[in-house]
Amino acid sequence: MKCRVCREPAVIDIRRHNANFCAEHFLRLCRDQVEKAIKRFAMLSPGDRVLVAVSGGKDSLALWDILIELGYDVDGLYVGLGIGEYSDVSGEYVHRFVEERGLTLVEVDLRADEGFDVPTAAAVTGRVPCSACGMSKRHLFDRAAREGGYDAVATGHNLDDEAAVLFGNLLKWQTDYLGRQRPVLPAGDGFPRKVKPLVRLGERETAAYCVLRGIDYQVEECPMAVGNKHLGFKETLNELERRSPGTKHDLYFGFLEQAVDRFVDAADGPDRAELGECTECGAPAAGEVCAFCRLAARARDAEPVPLGPPRRRRR
Amino acid sequence: MKCRVCREPAVIDIRRHNANFCAEHFLRLCRDQVEKAIKRFAMLSPGDRVLVAVSGGKDSLALWDILIELGYDVDGLYVGLGIGEYSDVSGEYVHRFVEERGLTLVEVDLRADEGFDVPTAAAVTGRVPCSACGMSKRHLFDRAAREGGYDAVATGHNLDDEAAVLFGNLLKWQTDYLGRQRPVLPAGDGFPRKVKPLVRLGERETAAYCVLRGIDYQVEECPMAVGNKHLGFKETLNELERRSPGTKHDLYFGFLEQAVDRFVDAADGPDRAELGECTECGAPAAGEVCAFCRLAARARDAEPVPLGPPRRRRR
Repeated sequence: MKCRVCREPAVIDIRRHNANFCAEHFLRLCRDQVEKAIKRFAMLSPGDRVLVAVSGGKDSLALWDILIELGYDVDGLYVGLGIGEYSDVSGEYVHRFVEERGLTLVEVDLRADEGFDVPTAAAVTGRVPCSACGMSKRHLFDRAAREGGYDAVATGHNLDDEAAVLFGNLLKWQTDYLGRQRPVLPAGDGFPRKVKPLVRLGERETAAYCVLRGIDYQVEECPMAVGNKHLGFKETLNELERRSPGTKHDLYFGFLEQAVDRFVDAADGPDRAELGECTECGAPAAGEVCAFCRLAARARDAEPVPLGPPRRRRR
Repeated sequence: MKCRVCREPAVIDIRRHNANFCAEHFLRLCRDQVEKAIKRFAMLSPGDRVLVAVSGGKDSLALWDILIELGYDVDGLYVGLGIGEYSDVSGEYVHRFVEERGLTLVEVDLRADEGFDVPTAAAVTGRVPCSACGMSKRHLFDRAAREGGYDAVATGHNLDDEAAVLFGNLLKWQTDYLGRQRPVLPAGDGFPRKVKPLVRLGERETAAYCVLRGIDYQVEECPMAVGNKHLGFKETLNELERRSPGTKHDLYFGFLEQAVDRFVDAADGPDRAELGECTECGAPAAGEVCAFCRLAARARDAEPVPLGPPRRRRR
């Protein structure tokens, strides 16, 4: 197995590229793929101040590392979600990464700063935990970017993530979601630009990137996500990819090239220009109080939920 | 396990309907579902002369039986494909069904009437066998309908078939196919109407229908189709359906309700109104000679291909 570029011994094969790479040229490939995504979708411009949302996992730490290598001005944002030991360990990986490199980290701790945590928020909503968690993170990402004057928030969503979300939306034809599933969400009306520069890399590649760059990361899945539908769709796509390498790439990029524009009129959400200001926190809000502040108020009033073993969900 | 309708002991459960049925009410359900599809998509009108394309398998024989039960005027069409013992046995099931019921059957034998068979046609095209086979069948269905003065050709494509075809087209965003994947293709310019009245029934249901109605059918898959992508997609959808009953229904009918219209402009194929007549057979043709006659000429000149064990294809 030889590197496609230099013919030296390879350390990784990438079946969808039908090629093998040595460490040096694999790392270069990862950076090239990120740069290609950034350019193709006009995600970032030179001089942009970027805030990368880091979880302590392979994707977000790889993203931060690559964006620095590419010369961008990037700080990190870590949100402590209060998911027991999982969150404690995740935070440790982030802190080690930041300290070793002398980087700047913005931190928000849901329990300390907002008076609740994800297990409690999930319990008061009665919905899957990822729902309350995702909404809270989006709100805190937006706020941190606004307060810190950042031009864009970058997240570590990779090709596997985006293909699995798309797959789920297609199975149910959720045209409201399909119409806005793009790797860039433009800035406007109080929201920062949101970008996903890893969409051309699979999670096997971001993991290999971290290993080769000596980046230690949280390997565990979030215990509250275990068994959810999204992970099931990832398994299905992995099986399809095994049979036919390139399936995830074709599904996701084919959608962006051939289909997403056809669903724009179905994209949901209130017209941003018509949003008011949340009377609690000042964030853009459809009603008087924004969804995050409403959730926070209910969660603060509730008995904190200890994180037990994950609930069994029907598969 | 009790019948949803009469509370007598049930013989089958249908998870996507979250219900069980006794034999009588299951058969009624099948007929109701076919009638519902026919009405919803305006497939057939009372008085239409219908030609049902039968293969000897469960779907097409169930369809013929149900259409008769629903009071339609239906003859059958059987095309002998020359796929060795598989075709011989398939033909026997069709003949038995026809003789037991005193029905009218139109027959075409590729080898006897057209001078070639599917294995030989597949070999000269160098493509997957289903490609030459499908094209040939469509041509012969159209011709038989034209010559017999039938208003519509009905085929036994069920929910599993249509969902798997859709799934494959989505994975590669074949917008040209997506734009015309509907259960009805209207008549016009020399083509009969094509209808798929089984789209609301899964293949487990058409199999159970045949068993309960005492219809013997060819159980084997076509040996030339074994291992093809379409069957792989069916397996994937079966796994998704197992985890979440209703997946196939939601995928297919969600597409028809929310998406197919968005792809109409991408639907391919020549404008029917601009087609000429094939100088060989008189069928509508884009060039001087239609695709079927071109294939037939090449296959007739070729050494007949004996049907060996199925080729191994990469999965």
